[in-house]
Amino acid sequence: MNPPESHGDLLKRALFGHLATVRPDGSPQSSVMWFDWDGEVLRFTHTRTRQKFRNFTAEPRVALSIHDPDDEYRMLEVRGRVEAIDDDPGGEFYRRTAQRYGGDDRVRDADVRVVVVVRPTSFVAVTGGQVVEP
Amino acid sequence: MNPPESHGDLLKRALFGHLATVRPDGSPQSSVMWFDWDGEVLRFTHTRTRQKFRNFTAEPRVALSIHDPDDEYRMLEVRGRVEAIDDDPGGEFYRRTAQRYGGDDRVRDADVRVVVVVRPTSFVAVTGGQVVEP
Repeated sequence: MNPPESHGDLLKRALFGHLATVRPDGSPQSSVMWFDWDGEVLRFTHTRTRQKFRNFTAEPRVALSIHDPDDEYRMLEVRGRVEAIDDDPGGEFYRRTAQRYGGDDRVRDADVRVVVVVRPTSFVAVTGGQVVEP
Repeated sequence: MNPPESHGDLLKRALFGHLATVRPDGSPQSSVMWFDWDGEVLRFTHTRTRQKFRNFTAEPRVALSIHDPDDEYRMLEVRGRVEAIDDDPGGEFYRRTAQRYGGDDRVRDADVRVVVVVRPTSFVAVTGGQVVEP
């Protein structure tokens, strides 16, 4: 499933996404996250030891929103579903993602690092504060 | 309830927040929003006619995350609860908020405009990508 062409750049640039997940008690959580988009799925680096990991396993539906720092009324929401949580041997995915974002790429917790794979189910694109798609 | 002193500025500046809500089917939604903080509650301008309004009424628990555009590893998550949805006669709150953000302050939908009031229940503050509070 492809994002609206007008907003595809927001998934390709190294921007900070805000990921909404649902906690086991049914309340929402919002976390700023690095992400990677390969044209089919979103990937997030995470660990098995944190709250969001429990959220993903209890409720696989998530939503990611991104706004364009150069035009803050231009934004994209991706709704999707966690379809896999893969090991990240040696923290390789973490390191690659950190480098893409210009962050600290030392992996201190490789033993618990995972890659969370989210397949989009819908997109909402906003320009000038108005929904343009769908 | 006060935010950690180190991160209070993120609520005072005219930054864009990402608001996580839960839809009636239990899935999360993430929306970029203007907000106003008076030291006690967050206020959002919204309308009675949109999806998020239905979310607020079905599940009053929400989470707002904000990252500092000048230091993107510095962020604040506010979890809270919708405690009131007030009318916004003439769109006065909308207009004031739009002006604070330097946005278009013409009110086209004053008849359905509301002010969503959220009282914080907890804060999570992050600096350098690490949780510093609580």
